[in-house]
Amino acid sequence: MYVDGNSLGRLPVRTRQAIADTVEQWATALVRGWHEWIELPEQVGDLLAEHILGARSGEVIVTDSVTVNLYKLAGAALAARGGRGVVVTDVDNFPTDRYVLEGLAPELRLVAGDPVEGPTAADVEAACAPGDVALVALSHVAYRSGALADLPAITEAAHAAGALVLWDLSHSAGAVPVGLEEHGVDLAVGCTYKYLNAGPGAPAFLYVRSTLQEELRTPIQGWFGQRDQFAMERPYEPAEGVARFLAGSPQVLGLVAVRAGAELVAEAGIVEIAAKGRALTGYAVDLHDAHLAPQGFELGTPRDPARRGAHVSFRHPEAWRLCRALIERARVVPDFRGPDTIRFGFPPLYTRFADVREGVERLRAVLERAEHLLVDAARPRVT
Amino acid sequence: MYVDGNSLGRLPVRTRQAIADTVEQWATALVRGWHEWIELPEQVGDLLAEHILGARSGEVIVTDSVTVNLYKLAGAALAARGGRGVVVTDVDNFPTDRYVLEGLAPELRLVAGDPVEGPTAADVEAACAPGDVALVALSHVAYRSGALADLPAITEAAHAAGALVLWDLSHSAGAVPVGLEEHGVDLAVGCTYKYLNAGPGAPAFLYVRSTLQEELRTPIQGWFGQRDQFAMERPYEPAEGVARFLAGSPQVLGLVAVRAGAELVAEAGIVEIAAKGRALTGYAVDLHDAHLAPQGFELGTPRDPARRGAHVSFRHPEAWRLCRALIERARVVPDFRGPDTIRFGFPPLYTRFADVREGVERLRAVLERAEHLLVDAARPRVT
Repeated sequence: MYVDGNSLGRLPVRTRQAIADTVEQWATALVRGWHEWIELPEQVGDLLAEHILGARSGEVIVTDSVTVNLYKLAGAALAARGGRGVVVTDVDNFPTDRYVLEGLAPELRLVAGDPVEGPTAADVEAACAPGDVALVALSHVAYRSGALADLPAITEAAHAAGALVLWDLSHSAGAVPVGLEEHGVDLAVGCTYKYLNAGPGAPAFLYVRSTLQEELRTPIQGWFGQRDQFAMERPYEPAEGVARFLAGSPQVLGLVAVRAGAELVAEAGIVEIAAKGRALTGYAVDLHDAHLAPQGFELGTPRDPARRGAHVSFRHPEAWRLCRALIERARVVPDFRGPDTIRFGFPPLYTRFADVREGVERLRAVLERAEHLLVDAARPRVT
Repeated sequence: MYVDGNSLGRLPVRTRQAIADTVEQWATALVRGWHEWIELPEQVGDLLAEHILGARSGEVIVTDSVTVNLYKLAGAALAARGGRGVVVTDVDNFPTDRYVLEGLAPELRLVAGDPVEGPTAADVEAACAPGDVALVALSHVAYRSGALADLPAITEAAHAAGALVLWDLSHSAGAVPVGLEEHGVDLAVGCTYKYLNAGPGAPAFLYVRSTLQEELRTPIQGWFGQRDQFAMERPYEPAEGVARFLAGSPQVLGLVAVRAGAELVAEAGIVEIAAKGRALTGYAVDLHDAHLAPQGFELGTPRDPARRGAHVSFRHPEAWRLCRALIERARVVPDFRGPDTIRFGFPPLYTRFADVREGVERLRAVLERAEHLLVDAARPRVT
């Protein structure tokens, strides 16, 4: 039983063929394939913008990794807000986000939100009060708790303080509607291998509000972000629009997989997907209260359905060994997130209510039979 | 007839299967596939190091694009040579290299080498004379002329001036031996979609001399470059060794293709490949002198076989239209590189001497029949 689609989504049937077709296109069209492939970062970006992120055409590209995209956008934001050197983030933000920002910002100011509910607009307002903040960078859905941030209110609080705002949508893109344009978001990044089912290491996306694009410059000046790219004799001049945030050659196979995965999400409808997600996570919360809480578990995810993404966290002091026992002895694949969290992901596209019930039941049974005491507690490189 | 394998190499038969197998691995192993995939950047890097680049195990990783890798390494070099803010490169270096360095370096000092022969050790020595150079960054084989730089002498000249040296091996990796360890090279980057046949947008590689690794830090601090990556609660601390230059999630499909392509090169042997390359390019030079020079062409590549990679450039004022006519009317696919160069790539693994003869013959025929006057001279987005 797979409840880890929020770590790596499943292979869509159509993607197998899309990748095979692209390999054959490489074999036969060779370099001429680039006449088509070169459009992919923007084309697939538009698909995400329109159907999944609530952004406009020309605001999203698919390229590089979340880490590299975050670096490019946060670097551009710091340069654009030259007089201000502070970046605000959350102590519980995803590690790569904290690491990137720590390396870039003259000062990183950490908000300590509630560990389950996450940072609030009031937390952000307080952190921005000194008036020295260039950028507020947070995750839309928290990787550990699954809390869905109040994106509209936090964006407004950051703007009121004269800061730009950057949302990491890795755990929300394809799980809940985002509404980037509606809420006036400045910048965003996110991955495609979770709820967009684009496969291991598929390229990430980045979003820059159209009215902000002309003002921002990427720190990584590459030839794919150059105006008139193949007139190679010229000095660097950023391309118009969001394409200026491209760097090197697009990952063609990965882009084709992102397109296939995003089309599937678009066909199902992000509003319908999110509604099923709330029902699945709500069922998991009920099951937790009935069967896990009596055994010493604590819910690590908000109880308000409007404040959840599509995964649920169960906290227990023995989380690590319980997680190993689930994988090794109960054929359930969840995720461990330190120090005490077992994360069950319920990608609405392919998770059944029966999976939720069965997953929770097996976790209960493992603890009841003390099977976690029988597993090797050593931690492998990948957890 | 394909003489553009130096722009995008052909699909190796084994790669089709390797990619399909990895897609099935995603379908079935799902997130558990990462126990194997996470090793790929270093494993495939070691393969390149041992068989293709003349480096040591633990000095090469396969990750990101050339552009991003160049940014990481040049940024690290500038930080490590704190007191010095000058980067030396060559006016004819590949655009993305110049753009990245221009964006990073407080001062970019451009060496103007001979347009055919490229920069010499004496040119570099002169540029480094003021003693303010942090980094010398050049291409091993020039993208336009195909000139093979005197890597040992230039590396020595840079070191004598207290500078680090970074080689872009995009046009030499898989075409000629490199000898990174033998020549004491500090840093290198290169792509895999040319002579390593890893496909469109496959990940690039980077090399950091082992004795330098501890001293350097990437500007892009990501979770894959973090010591003890999955202990997510800790602050950023770079991983040991070259892995500290990883950033985000490895592109799994691309890495598998790099492995397949690199194994093929390793089996054929880089010394044997280079010997055939010299013979192929030598034949092309002879044919140029006999058939093209009388029609107004000039050779844009060094005549000394020891100073060539595996591609040859023919210069002509009508290069753009001749190139179009070759593609549209003579079924030859070369490359145009502005302002006046037609580039014929002869990847030794699959180029026959008959291809060289036929390619040059068709170019001669197109010009003789003035077929270039019949094509549309408008330039598409990709040239």
